[in-house]
Amino acid sequence: MSGWVLSDARIATMAGGYGLIEGGSVVIEGERIAWVGAGSVPPEYDGWERVSAGGRLVTPGLIDCHTHIVFGGHRAREFELRLEGASYEQIAREGGGIVSTVAATREASDAALIEGALTRLDALISEGVTTVEVKSGYGLDHETELRMLRTARALAARRAVEVCTSFLGAHAVPAGGEADAYIDEVCIPALRAAKAEGLVDAVDGFCEGIAFDTKQIARVFDVAHELDLPVKLHAEQLSNMGGAQLAARYGALSADHVEYATEDDAAALAESGTVAVLLPGAFYTIRETQAPPIEAFRAHGVPMALATDCNPGSSPLASLLLTLNMGCTLFRLTPEEALLGVTAHAARALGLSDRGRIAPGLRADLAIWDVETPAELAYRIGFNPLHARIFGGKR
Amino acid sequence: MSGWVLSDARIATMAGGYGLIEGGSVVIEGERIAWVGAGSVPPEYDGWERVSAGGRLVTPGLIDCHTHIVFGGHRAREFELRLEGASYEQIAREGGGIVSTVAATREASDAALIEGALTRLDALISEGVTTVEVKSGYGLDHETELRMLRTARALAARRAVEVCTSFLGAHAVPAGGEADAYIDEVCIPALRAAKAEGLVDAVDGFCEGIAFDTKQIARVFDVAHELDLPVKLHAEQLSNMGGAQLAARYGALSADHVEYATEDDAAALAESGTVAVLLPGAFYTIRETQAPPIEAFRAHGVPMALATDCNPGSSPLASLLLTLNMGCTLFRLTPEEALLGVTAHAARALGLSDRGRIAPGLRADLAIWDVETPAELAYRIGFNPLHARIFGGKR
Ligand SMILES: [Zn+2]
Ligand SMILES: [Zn+2]
Repeated sequence: MSGWVLSDARIATMAGGYGLIEGGSVVIEGERIAWVGAGSVPPEYDGWERVSAGGRLVTPGLIDCHTHIVFGGHRAREFELRLEGASYEQIAREGGGIVSTVAATREASDAALIEGALTRLDALISEGVTTVEVKSGYGLDHETELRMLRTARALAARRAVEVCTSFLGAHAVPAGGEADAYIDEVCIPALRAAKAEGLVDAVDGFCEGIAFDTKQIARVFDVAHELDLPVKLHAEQLSNMGGAQLAARYGALSADHVEYATEDDAAALAESGTVAVLLPGAFYTIRETQAPPIEAFRAHGVPMALATDCNPGSSPLASLLLTLNMGCTLFRLTPEEALLGVTAHAARALGLSDRGRIAPGLRADLAIWDVETPAELAYRIGFNPLHARIFGGKR
Repeated sequence: MSGWVLSDARIATMAGGYGLIEGGSVVIEGERIAWVGAGSVPPEYDGWERVSAGGRLVTPGLIDCHTHIVFGGHRAREFELRLEGASYEQIAREGGGIVSTVAATREASDAALIEGALTRLDALISEGVTTVEVKSGYGLDHETELRMLRTARALAARRAVEVCTSFLGAHAVPAGGEADAYIDEVCIPALRAAKAEGLVDAVDGFCEGIAFDTKQIARVFDVAHELDLPVKLHAEQLSNMGGAQLAARYGALSADHVEYATEDDAAALAESGTVAVLLPGAFYTIRETQAPPIEAFRAHGVPMALATDCNPGSSPLASLLLTLNMGCTLFRLTPEEALLGVTAHAARALGLSDRGRIAPGLRADLAIWDVETPAELAYRIGFNPLHARIFGGKR
C-alpha cells in the first residue's frame, strides 16, 4: 500500500483544542492518516507523491451530527403566512406544521426523496462536510419510516460522504393517532424491522410536551438497548421534561437542543459522557430567547457539538459554517469550541472514534480552507472559503 | 438590433409586490428588456432565439445597496478575543476595532485591496447579485479614501456587475484626530478630489455618538449638494441622534440601519421619499435588541430595502440571500417585502430607475432560481438555489 503527502499546511488537528501545527504535513495511506506533524516526513514516506496545501489551513472534514435532510415538500408558504400575520388556524387549514411534511414525505416517490435530500447534502458537502447524520421521523408509519432510512443509505452511494442513520419514529404523534398506541404499535415494530434490514445506526426521540414524555421514550430506548443500538434524544428544547436525565440514564450518545437543561442535567450528562448537541439554527428560527446553559456545560466538562438540525420547519438551514457563526454569536461559544463542535465532539456524538481529529490511524477526511486562522471559519457569515475536500484519502 | 427570449418562466416582476406572471417570457434586446408577459411573445420577436427557463422562477438581478467590501485584513482575532472574554482594553491593545481595519487598509497594496474585495464580490455574485454599492471609509486620509473608491471602480472592470460608489470619509474620526478638523481639513477636500476624479456616485456619513454629529454631517452634505451628488446616511443605529431627520431634510436617497428611528422619523422619511435600508447582519452580529420600527415604516409608506452591510467588524456577512432570511426572521418583514428590499427598493436606495424590476426598457439584469415560489428565497437559510444569472442581457 502507498499513498500521498499533503504538505505545506497549517493543520488544526483538533486534538483537545485547535491543536495547531505550523508548516505541517499529513501522510495519507489509503483511506487513513499514517502520519501528521511539522517538518520533514519520516523517511519511509520520502518517495510518496506530494501535494502542497499552499500554506492553507487544514482541518478534519466537518461532521454534521444532527440533520433531517430527507423529507418531502417544503414549508415556505407556512413561513410566509406566519410573517403575514396569519392565525394558527389559517396555517393549520393551509396544511402547515409537521403534519404537512409528513403528508408530503409519504406522498413523495423514492426518487423525489433522494433528489430533494441531495440538494441539501450537496450544500453541506460544498462546505467541507464528510460525515452527516440523517434521521427518519417524517413517516410516522411503518413503511415510510423505513423508506426514509433507505433514502439516507442511498445518499451515501451517490456522494463521497458517510451517512449515519438515526431512527426517529418517536418524532411526533401522527394525525389522528394516540401517543402510547403509536409508540407500541407503530414505532417499536418499525424500529425492529429497520434494524433487521440494517438501516439503523442509532435511535432518537423527541421528548417534549408536543411529542412524547420520558416514559414513552424509555420504552423505545429499552428496545434500542435490546437491539444493541445506541440512543440519543431531542431534549429540553422548549421546556424541561426530564429528557436530559433520561438520556444520561441510558448512556445516550447525545442530548440535543438542551436550551432548558439545568445545572443538574449538565452534571448528569457529564457523568454519562453524553454530548450536548447545540442547534442554533432552530434557536434562531423559532426566536427562542433561552440559550443552552453553556457555562454549566463548561463547568461540568460536557462536550458540546454543533449541528444544523436541517429540517423544513424549525431550521431550514443547510450551512454548517453558518452554524459555527451562530454558535458563537447566539450561544457565545468560542470559535475553538465551535470548531470542536463540528469535528471531534460531533464524531463523539455519533459514537465514531475514527474521525473528527487529524491523527495517525484515523480516517483521512480533511478540509482545506482559504483562510489564515481557524477562527475565520466561525467569524465570517454566509461565506464559504473551502478550497478542497478530501474523503477517505481521495480528493 | 436583435436579441433573445427567456421563455417558460415564472416571473416575479417586483412591480409593487411579487407581480407574478405564470408561464411568462422576457424578451431581451441588447442590454435591455424589450417585453415581458404571459403567453406568446409579440410577432416581431417570433424568430428570436429562445432559451427555456424550464418553469423556474425569474427575478430581477439582486441589488446589495449597502456594503463595505473594500478593506484590508480581517477581524477574526477580535471576534475570537471577545468570545474568549477579553476586556475592551485587551482587544484595543491587540489592535481591534475600526482602527485596525483602517491601518490594514492603508497598508494594503492596490492589488491586495482588489483581491480581497473580489472574494466578497464573488460570493455576492454567486447568489444572483448584479448591482452592488461599495463605500470608502477605511482610509480616513485623503489618499486612501480615493484609493478605496478606485478599487471599487476597478471591481466593475473585472466582473459582470455594476458597482455604485459612495464616499464615506465621514465614517469615523481617525486615531489621533479631532472630528471637526477632520471633516473640514481631510474629509471635505478628499470628497472634492474624488468627485473631480469621477469616483463618487453618492455621499454617505455615519451619524452616531462614536462618529459624527448632525452638524458635522451637514457640512459634508452641503458640499455633496454643491457637487450635485446625492446623499445617504448611517442613522440611528445605536441611538437616536437626529440622523434620519437630517437625511430627510437633505432629500437623502436612504437612511440606513435606523433601529432607533421614531414614528416622527418615519413620517419625515416618507415625506422626503427616502428609503429605509435595513441591515439585519449588523443587528445580529452586535446582538442589538431594538429592531427598526417596521410598523411605522409600513404605516407611513417608507420603502424598505435590505442589504448585507458586508464589513469586517459589525457584519462580516457576504450573503444577500441570508440577509433576506434575517430580514424576515429578525425584523418580521414578509418574504415579499424582503424581496422588494433587494430589488425595486434597493434600486431606489441607489437612485437607479433603470433596474430592480422586470419591465420593458429596464436593464436585463435577471436571476433564475431553482425554486417554485419567491418566498423560498427568504425561507431557506445558508442555501443558494441560483440556477443562472443574466447581466445586461448576457448569460
Ligand atoms: Zn432535530
Ligand atoms: Zn455600513
